[in-house]
Amino acid sequence: MAQSSTSDRVHAAALRLFATRGFAGTGIRQIADEAGITVASLYHYMGTKEDLLERMMHESMSQLLGPAEELAASTADPLTRITGLVRLHVRRHATHRDLCRVGDTELRSLSRTRLSRIVALRDTYQGLWETAIGDGARAGVFAVPDVKLAALALLEMCTGVVHWYSPRGRLPLDRISDTYVEMAAALLGARPASPADAGTEITDAALAATARES
Amino acid sequence: MAQSSTSDRVHAAALRLFATRGFAGTGIRQIADEAGITVASLYHYMGTKEDLLERMMHESMSQLLGPAEELAASTADPLTRITGLVRLHVRRHATHRDLCRVGDTELRSLSRTRLSRIVALRDTYQGLWETAIGDGARAGVFAVPDVKLAALALLEMCTGVVHWYSPRGRLPLDRISDTYVEMAAALLGARPASPADAGTEITDAALAATARES
Repeated sequence: MAQSSTSDRVHAAALRLFATRGFAGTGIRQIADEAGITVASLYHYMGTKEDLLERMMHESMSQLLGPAEELAASTADPLTRITGLVRLHVRRHATHRDLCRVGDTELRSLSRTRLSRIVALRDTYQGLWETAIGDGARAGVFAVPDVKLAALALLEMCTGVVHWYSPRGRLPLDRISDTYVEMAAALLGARPASPADAGTEITDAALAATARES
Repeated sequence: MAQSSTSDRVHAAALRLFATRGFAGTGIRQIADEAGITVASLYHYMGTKEDLLERMMHESMSQLLGPAEELAASTADPLTRITGLVRLHVRRHATHRDLCRVGDTELRSLSRTRLSRIVALRDTYQGLWETAIGDGARAGVFAVPDVKLAALALLEMCTGVVHWYSPRGRLPLDRISDTYVEMAAALLGARPASPADAGTEITDAALAATARES
Protein backbone atom coordinates (compact mmCIF):
# COMPACT_ATOMS: atom_id res chain seq x y z
CA MET A 1 0.00 0.00 0.00
CA ALA A 2 2.77 2.44 0.99
CA GLN A 3 4.69 1.44 -2.13
CA SER A 4 1.74 2.15 -4.38
CA SER A 5 0.92 5.49 -2.80
CA THR A 6 4.55 6.65 -3.03
CA SER A 7 4.59 5.58 -6.68
CA ASP A 8 1.41 7.53 -7.25
CA ARG A 9 2.92 10.58 -5.54
CA VAL A 10 6.05 10.40 -7.71
CA HIS A 11 3.92 10.00 -10.83
CA ALA A 12 1.70 12.95 -9.89
CA ALA A 13 4.68 15.16 -9.01
CA ALA A 14 6.47 14.35 -12.28
CA LEU A 15 3.30 14.90 -14.28
CA ARG A 16 2.77 18.36 -12.77
CA LEU A 17 6.38 19.32 -13.47
CA PHE A 18 6.50 17.92 -17.01
CA ALA A 19 3.24 19.72 -17.85
CA THR A 20 4.39 23.09 -16.53
CA ARG A 21 8.16 23.07 -17.22
CA GLY A 22 8.48 20.43 -19.92
CA PHE A 23 10.36 17.13 -19.70
CA ALA A 24 13.79 18.56 -20.55
CA GLY A 25 13.27 21.42 -18.11
CA THR A 26 12.50 19.13 -15.17
CA GLY A 27 15.35 17.81 -13.02
CA ILE A 28 15.39 14.60 -10.98
CA ARG A 29 15.92 16.64 -7.80
CA GLN A 30 12.79 18.70 -8.50
CA ILE A 31 10.69 15.55 -8.88
CA ALA A 32 12.09 14.17 -5.60
CA ASP A 33 11.45 17.47 -3.78
CA GLU A 34 7.93 17.76 -5.17
CA ALA A 35 7.15 14.14 -4.18
CA GLY A 36 8.79 14.58 -0.77
CA ILE A 37 11.31 11.72 -1.07
CA THR A 38 15.09 11.47 -1.54
CA VAL A 39 16.73 11.33 -4.96
CA ALA A 40 18.18 7.91 -4.08
CA SER A 41 14.78 6.36 -3.45
CA LEU A 42 13.24 8.15 -6.44
CA TYR A 43 14.89 5.73 -8.89
CA HIS A 44 13.33 2.82 -7.04
CA TYR A 45 9.88 4.22 -7.70
CA MET A 46 10.24 5.58 -11.21
CA GLY A 47 13.36 4.13 -12.89
CA THR A 48 14.91 6.77 -15.14
CA LYS A 49 13.14 10.01 -16.05
CA GLU A 50 12.62 8.63 -19.56
CA ASP A 51 11.10 5.37 -18.19
CA LEU A 52 8.57 7.50 -16.36
CA LEU A 53 7.82 9.66 -19.39
CA GLU A 54 7.23 6.61 -21.57
CA ARG A 55 4.91 5.07 -18.94
CA MET A 56 2.99 8.35 -18.77
CA MET A 57 2.61 8.59 -22.52
CA HIS A 58 1.65 4.95 -22.77
CA GLU A 59 -0.99 5.48 -20.10
CA SER A 60 -2.23 8.63 -21.84
CA MET A 61 -2.56 6.92 -25.23
CA SER A 62 -3.96 3.60 -24.05
CA GLN A 63 -6.61 5.17 -21.81
CA LEU A 64 -7.83 6.93 -24.95
CA LEU A 65 -7.34 4.03 -27.35
CA GLY A 66 -9.16 1.42 -25.21
CA PRO A 67 -12.54 3.21 -25.07
CA ALA A 68 -12.12 4.37 -28.67
CA GLU A 69 -11.65 0.80 -29.94
CA GLU A 70 -14.64 -0.35 -27.91
CA LEU A 71 -16.71 2.47 -29.35
CA ALA A 72 -15.60 1.84 -32.93
CA ALA A 73 -16.43 -1.88 -32.60
CA SER A 74 -19.87 -1.19 -31.13
CA THR A 75 -21.51 0.33 -34.20
CA ALA A 76 -21.24 0.27 -37.98
CA ASP A 77 -22.79 3.71 -38.40
CA PRO A 78 -19.99 6.14 -39.39
CA LEU A 79 -21.67 9.22 -37.88
CA THR A 80 -22.32 7.53 -34.53
CA ARG A 81 -18.72 6.35 -34.52
CA ILE A 82 -17.08 9.68 -35.35
CA THR A 83 -19.30 11.73 -33.04
CA GLY A 84 -18.57 9.24 -30.26
CA LEU A 85 -14.83 9.63 -30.92
CA VAL A 86 -15.14 13.43 -30.91
CA ARG A 87 -17.01 13.38 -27.61
CA LEU A 88 -14.52 10.96 -26.03
CA HIS A 89 -11.48 12.98 -27.19
CA VAL A 90 -12.90 16.33 -26.06
CA ARG A 91 -13.89 15.02 -22.62
CA ARG A 92 -10.62 13.21 -22.09
CA HIS A 93 -8.59 16.32 -23.02
CA ALA A 94 -10.72 18.48 -20.72
CA THR A 95 -10.53 16.14 -17.71
CA HIS A 96 -6.89 14.97 -18.02
CA ARG A 97 -5.24 18.19 -19.08
CA ASP A 98 -1.72 17.66 -17.69
CA LEU A 99 -1.50 14.09 -18.97
CA CYS A 100 -2.80 15.02 -22.44
CA ARG A 101 -0.52 18.05 -22.63
CA VAL A 102 2.55 15.95 -21.85
CA GLY A 103 1.33 13.25 -24.24
CA ASP A 104 0.85 15.80 -27.03
CA THR A 105 4.09 17.79 -26.66
CA GLU A 106 6.78 15.42 -25.38
CA LEU A 107 7.03 12.91 -28.22
CA ARG A 108 10.21 14.83 -29.08
CA SER A 109 11.74 13.78 -25.75
CA LEU A 110 11.54 10.02 -26.37
CA SER A 111 14.39 7.98 -27.82
CA ARG A 112 13.75 6.22 -31.11
CA THR A 113 12.61 2.82 -29.75
CA ARG A 114 10.32 4.28 -27.12
CA LEU A 115 8.99 6.77 -29.64
CA SER A 116 8.07 4.06 -32.12
CA ARG A 117 6.02 2.23 -29.45
CA ILE A 118 4.01 5.35 -28.60
CA VAL A 119 3.63 6.41 -32.23
CA ALA A 120 2.24 2.95 -33.05
CA LEU A 121 -0.53 3.46 -30.48
CA ARG A 122 -1.22 6.96 -31.81
CA ASP A 123 -1.38 5.69 -35.39
CA THR A 124 -3.88 2.99 -34.38
CA TYR A 125 -6.00 5.62 -32.64
CA GLN A 126 -5.82 7.99 -35.61
CA GLY A 127 -6.72 5.06 -37.85
CA LEU A 128 -10.06 4.66 -36.03
CA TRP A 129 -10.94 8.25 -36.97
CA GLU A 130 -9.82 7.78 -40.58
CA THR A 131 -11.78 4.54 -40.92
CA ALA A 132 -14.99 6.10 -39.57
CA ILE A 133 -14.63 9.11 -41.88
CA GLY A 134 -13.63 6.96 -44.86
CA ASP A 135 -16.59 4.60 -44.31
CA GLY A 136 -18.94 7.59 -44.17
CA ALA A 137 -17.45 9.11 -47.32
CA ARG A 138 -17.78 5.82 -49.23
CA ALA A 139 -21.37 5.40 -47.99
CA GLY A 140 -22.14 8.92 -49.22
CA VAL A 141 -23.18 10.18 -45.78
CA PHE A 142 -20.11 12.43 -45.43
CA ALA A 143 -18.74 14.87 -48.01
CA VAL A 144 -15.06 15.51 -47.31
CA PRO A 145 -12.38 16.71 -49.74
CA ASP A 146 -9.72 14.42 -48.18
CA VAL A 147 -10.26 11.70 -45.54
CA LYS A 148 -6.80 11.92 -43.94
CA LEU A 149 -6.89 15.72 -43.70
CA ALA A 150 -10.41 15.62 -42.26
CA ALA A 151 -9.23 13.19 -39.55
CA LEU A 152 -6.21 15.37 -38.71
CA ALA A 153 -8.34 18.53 -38.68
CA LEU A 154 -10.93 17.02 -36.33
CA LEU A 155 -8.31 15.50 -34.03
CA GLU A 156 -6.43 18.79 -33.68
CA MET A 157 -9.61 20.79 -33.24
CA CYS A 158 -10.65 18.52 -30.34
CA THR A 159 -7.15 18.33 -28.84
CA GLY A 160 -7.14 22.13 -28.65
CA VAL A 161 -9.64 21.99 -25.78
CA VAL A 162 -6.68 21.13 -23.52
CA HIS A 163 -5.30 24.65 -24.00
CA TRP A 164 -8.31 26.63 -22.83
CA TYR A 165 -10.79 24.42 -20.98
CA SER A 166 -11.41 25.28 -17.34
CA PRO A 167 -14.01 23.70 -15.02
CA ARG A 168 -14.81 27.30 -14.00
CA GLY A 169 -15.19 28.48 -17.60
CA ARG A 170 -18.18 29.95 -19.45
CA LEU A 171 -19.71 26.64 -20.55
CA PRO A 172 -20.10 23.25 -18.82
CA LEU A 173 -18.20 20.36 -20.40
CA ASP A 174 -21.34 18.62 -21.67
CA ARG A 175 -22.31 21.71 -23.59
CA ILE A 176 -18.79 22.04 -25.01
CA SER A 177 -18.66 18.42 -26.18
CA ASP A 178 -22.16 18.73 -27.70
CA THR A 179 -20.98 21.80 -29.62
CA TYR A 180 -17.85 20.01 -30.84
CA VAL A 181 -19.97 17.09 -32.01
CA GLU A 182 -22.18 19.50 -33.92
CA MET A 183 -19.20 21.31 -35.51
CA ALA A 184 -17.55 18.00 -36.46
CA ALA A 185 -20.74 16.78 -38.13
CA ALA A 186 -20.96 20.04 -40.07
CA LEU A 187 -17.30 19.82 -41.14
CA LEU A 188 -17.96 16.31 -42.45
CA GLY A 189 -20.99 17.53 -44.40
CA ALA A 190 -23.29 15.34 -42.26
CA ARG A 191 -26.35 16.93 -40.73
CA PRO A 192 -28.32 14.52 -38.57
CA ALA A 193 -31.59 15.62 -36.96
CA SER A 194 -29.91 16.03 -33.62
CA PRO A 195 -26.14 15.57 -33.89
CA ALA A 196 -25.62 16.41 -30.22
CA ASP A 197 -27.40 13.18 -29.24
CA ALA A 198 -25.35 10.91 -31.45
CA GLY A 199 -22.93 8.67 -29.59
CA THR A 200 -23.66 10.00 -26.10
CA GLU A 201 -24.58 6.70 -24.48
CA ILE A 202 -21.79 4.75 -26.06
CA THR A 203 -19.15 7.27 -24.97
CA ASP A 204 -20.52 7.43 -21.44
CA ALA A 205 -20.27 3.66 -21.16
CA ALA A 206 -16.79 3.61 -22.69
CA LEU A 207 -15.57 6.38 -20.39
CA ALA A 208 -17.08 4.81 -17.29
CA ALA A 209 -15.28 1.55 -18.07
CA THR A 210 -11.87 3.18 -17.85
CA ALA A 211 -12.61 6.17 -15.64
CA ARG A 212 -9.56 7.27 -13.74
CA GLU A 213 -8.88 10.98 -13.38
CA SER A 214 -5.27 12.05 -13.30
CA MET B 1 26.71 43.81 -40.94
CA ALA B 2 28.72 41.37 -38.79
CA GLN B 3 26.59 42.34 -35.79
CA SER B 4 23.37 41.61 -37.62
CA SER B 5 24.52 38.28 -39.01
CA THR B 6 25.74 37.11 -35.58
CA SER B 7 22.42 38.16 -34.08
CA ASP B 8 20.63 36.21 -36.77
CA ARG B 9 22.82 33.18 -36.08
CA VAL B 10 22.08 33.37 -32.34
CA HIS B 11 18.37 33.75 -33.04
CA ALA B 12 18.35 30.79 -35.45
CA ALA B 13 20.36 28.60 -33.05
CA ALA B 14 18.09 29.39 -30.10
CA LEU B 15 14.97 28.82 -32.21
CA ARG B 16 16.18 25.37 -33.31
CA LEU B 17 17.00 24.42 -29.72
CA PHE B 18 13.78 25.81 -28.18
CA ALA B 19 11.72 24.01 -30.84
CA THR B 20 13.42 20.65 -30.31
CA ARG B 21 14.29 20.66 -26.58
CA GLY B 22 11.91 23.29 -25.21
CA PHE B 23 12.86 26.60 -23.58
CA ALA B 24 13.47 25.19 -20.08
CA GLY B 25 15.50 22.32 -21.54
CA THR B 26 17.88 24.62 -23.44
CA GLY B 27 20.98 25.95 -21.68
CA ILE B 28 22.87 29.17 -22.44
CA ARG B 29 25.99 27.15 -23.24
CA GLN B 30 24.11 25.08 -25.83
CA ILE B 31 22.91 28.22 -27.61
CA ALA B 32 26.45 29.62 -27.63
CA ASP B 33 27.90 26.33 -28.95
CA GLU B 34 25.21 26.03 -31.62
CA ALA B 35 25.78 29.65 -32.73
CA GLY B 36 29.57 29.23 -32.62
CA ILE B 37 30.29 32.09 -30.17
CA THR B 38 31.36 32.36 -26.52
CA VAL B 39 28.88 32.48 -23.65
CA ALA B 40 30.25 35.90 -22.67
CA SER B 41 29.46 37.45 -26.04
CA LEU B 42 26.12 35.65 -26.25
CA TYR B 43 24.54 38.06 -23.76
CA HIS B 44 25.56 40.98 -25.94
CA TYR B 45 23.58 39.56 -28.85
CA MET B 46 20.53 38.18 -27.11
CA GLY B 47 20.23 39.62 -23.58
CA THR B 48 18.79 36.99 -21.25
CA LYS B 49 17.27 33.76 -22.50
CA GLU B 50 13.83 35.11 -21.61
CA ASP B 51 14.46 38.36 -23.53
CA LEU B 52 15.15 36.25 -26.58
CA LEU B 53 12.08 34.07 -26.05
CA GLU B 54 9.82 37.10 -25.73
CA ARG B 55 11.31 38.64 -28.91
CA MET B 56 10.71 35.35 -30.73
CA MET B 57 7.12 35.10 -29.56
CA HIS B 58 6.48 38.75 -30.36
CA GLU B 59 7.87 38.20 -33.85
CA SER B 60 5.78 35.05 -34.28
CA MET B 61 2.54 36.75 -33.23
CA SER B 62 3.04 40.06 -34.98
CA GLN B 63 4.04 38.48 -38.30
CA LEU B 64 0.69 36.71 -38.17
CA LEU B 65 -1.33 39.62 -36.76
CA GLY B 66 -0.11 42.22 -39.29
CA PRO B 67 -1.34 40.42 -42.43
CA ALA B 68 -4.47 39.24 -40.59
CA GLU B 69 -5.45 42.80 -39.67
CA GLU B 70 -4.80 43.96 -43.24
CA LEU B 71 -6.93 41.13 -44.53
CA ALA B 72 -9.76 41.75 -42.07
CA ALA B 73 -9.83 45.45 -42.99
CA SER B 74 -9.87 44.75 -46.72
CA THR B 75 -13.33 43.21 -46.98
CA ALA B 76 -16.67 43.28 -45.20
CA ASP B 77 -17.65 39.82 -46.46
CA PRO B 78 -17.43 37.40 -43.49
CA LEU B 79 -16.70 34.32 -45.61
CA THR B 80 -13.91 36.02 -47.57
CA ARG B 81 -12.45 37.22 -44.28
CA ILE B 82 -12.54 33.90 -42.43
CA THR B 83 -11.31 31.84 -45.38
CA GLY B 84 -8.49 34.34 -45.84
CA LEU B 85 -7.58 33.96 -42.15
CA VAL B 86 -7.67 30.16 -42.43
CA ARG B 87 -5.41 30.21 -45.46
CA LEU B 88 -2.97 32.65 -43.84
CA HIS B 89 -2.79 30.64 -40.58
CA VAL B 90 -2.31 27.28 -42.32
CA ARG B 91 0.42 28.62 -44.62
CA ARG B 92 2.21 30.43 -41.83
CA HIS B 93 2.21 27.33 -39.60
CA ALA B 94 3.46 25.16 -42.47
CA THR B 95 6.27 27.51 -43.51
CA HIS B 96 7.46 28.69 -40.05
CA ARG B 97 7.17 25.46 -38.11
CA ASP B 98 9.86 26.04 -35.47
CA LEU B 99 8.74 29.61 -34.75
CA CYS B 100 5.07 28.66 -34.54
CA ARG B 101 5.82 25.62 -32.36
CA VAL B 102 7.76 27.75 -29.87
CA GLY B 103 5.07 30.44 -30.03
CA ASP B 104 2.33 27.88 -29.36
CA THR B 105 3.97 25.90 -26.54
CA GLU B 106 6.20 28.28 -24.58
CA LEU B 107 3.69 30.78 -23.21
CA ARG B 108 4.20 28.86 -19.94
CA SER B 109 7.86 29.93 -19.88
CA LEU B 110 7.19 33.70 -19.85
CA SER B 111 7.00 35.73 -16.65
CA ARG B 112 3.72 37.51 -15.91
CA THR B 113 4.49 40.89 -17.52
CA ARG B 114 5.99 39.43 -20.66
CA LEU B 115 3.15 36.93 -20.87
CA SER B 116 0.49 39.63 -20.72
CA ARG B 117 2.11 41.46 -23.66
CA ILE B 118 2.09 38.35 -25.85
CA VAL B 119 -1.39 37.26 -24.74
CA ALA B 120 -2.71 40.72 -25.68
CA LEU B 121 -1.45 40.20 -29.25
CA ARG B 122 -2.93 36.70 -29.34
CA ASP B 123 -6.29 37.95 -28.06
CA THR B 124 -6.37 40.64 -30.76
CA TYR B 125 -5.61 38.01 -33.39
CA GLN B 126 -8.26 35.63 -32.04
CA GLY B 127 -10.69 38.55 -31.97
CA LEU B 128 -10.36 38.94 -35.74
CA TRP B 129 -11.56 35.35 -36.16
CA GLU B 130 -14.43 35.81 -33.70
CA THR B 131 -15.53 39.04 -35.37
CA ALA B 132 -15.59 37.48 -38.84
CA ILE B 133 -17.54 34.45 -37.58
CA GLY B 134 -19.88 36.60 -35.47
CA ASP B 135 -20.55 38.95 -38.41
CA GLY B 136 -21.37 35.95 -40.60
CA ALA B 137 -23.64 34.44 -37.96
CA ARG B 138 -25.53 37.73 -37.50
CA ALA B 139 -25.85 38.13 -41.28
CA GLY B 140 -27.26 34.59 -41.49
CA VAL B 141 -24.54 33.34 -43.83
CA PHE B 142 -22.96 31.09 -41.15
CA ALA B 143 -24.78 28.65 -38.86
CA VAL B 144 -22.66 28.03 -35.75
CA PRO B 145 -23.80 26.85 -32.32
CA ASP B 146 -21.30 29.14 -30.53
CA VAL B 147 -19.12 31.86 -32.09
CA LYS B 148 -16.26 31.66 -29.56
CA LEU B 149 -16.06 27.86 -29.73
CA ALA B 150 -16.15 27.97 -33.53
CA ALA B 151 -13.21 30.41 -33.55
CA LEU B 152 -11.23 28.24 -31.12
CA ALA B 153 -12.03 25.07 -33.06
CA LEU B 154 -10.93 26.58 -36.38
CA LEU B 155 -7.78 28.10 -34.91
CA GLU B 156 -6.68 24.82 -33.33
CA MET B 157 -7.55 22.82 -36.41
CA CYS B 158 -5.33 25.10 -38.54
CA THR B 159 -2.54 25.31 -35.94
CA GLY B 160 -2.34 21.51 -35.99
CA VAL B 161 -0.72 21.65 -39.43
CA VAL B 162 2.54 22.54 -37.64
CA HIS B 163 2.67 19.01 -36.17
CA TRP B 164 2.55 17.02 -39.39
CA TYR B 165 3.24 19.22 -42.43
CA SER B 166 6.30 18.38 -44.44
CA PRO B 167 7.36 19.96 -47.75
CA ARG B 168 8.02 16.37 -48.90
CA GLY B 169 4.57 15.15 -47.82
CA ARG B 170 1.69 13.66 -49.80
CA LEU B 171 0.05 16.98 -50.75
CA PRO B 172 1.44 20.37 -51.81
CA LEU B 173 0.76 23.26 -49.43
CA ASP B 174 -1.67 24.98 -51.82
CA ARG B 175 -3.81 21.88 -51.93
CA ILE B 176 -3.69 21.56 -48.13
CA SER B 177 -4.73 25.17 -47.54
CA ASP B 178 -7.53 24.84 -50.15
CA THR B 179 -8.79 21.77 -48.28
CA TYR B 180 -8.67 23.56 -44.93
CA VAL B 181 -10.62 26.49 -46.39
CA GLU B 182 -13.22 24.06 -47.66
CA MET B 183 -13.48 22.25 -44.29
CA ALA B 184 -13.70 25.56 -42.40
CA ALA B 185 -16.52 26.78 -44.65
CA ALA B 186 -18.38 23.50 -44.05
CA LEU B 187 -17.89 23.73 -40.27
CA LEU B 188 -19.36 27.23 -40.35
CA GLY B 189 -22.34 26.01 -42.35
CA ALA B 190 -21.33 28.20 -45.31
CA ARG B 191 -21.25 26.57 -48.70
CA PRO B 192 -20.08 28.94 -51.42
CA ALA B 193 -19.84 27.79 -55.04
CA SER B 194 -16.07 27.49 -54.81
CA PRO B 195 -14.83 28.04 -51.28
CA ALA B 196 -11.28 27.18 -52.24
CA ASP B 197 -11.07 30.38 -54.31
CA ALA B 198 -12.30 32.67 -51.56
CA GLY B 199 -9.62 34.92 -50.11
CA THR B 200 -6.71 33.61 -52.18
CA GLU B 201 -5.65 36.91 -53.70
CA ILE B 202 -6.00 38.86 -50.49
CA THR B 203 -3.92 36.37 -48.52
CA ASP B 204 -1.26 36.23 -51.20
CA ALA B 205 -0.95 40.03 -51.11
CA ALA B 206 -0.94 40.07 -47.31
CA LEU B 207 1.69 37.35 -47.12
CA ALA B 208 3.89 38.97 -49.77
CA ALA B 209 3.83 42.25 -47.83
CA THR B 210 5.44 40.65 -44.79
CA ALA B 211 7.23 37.70 -46.35
CA ARG B 212 10.21 36.60 -44.30
CA GLU B 213 10.87 32.90 -43.81
CA SER B 214 12.43 31.89 -40.53
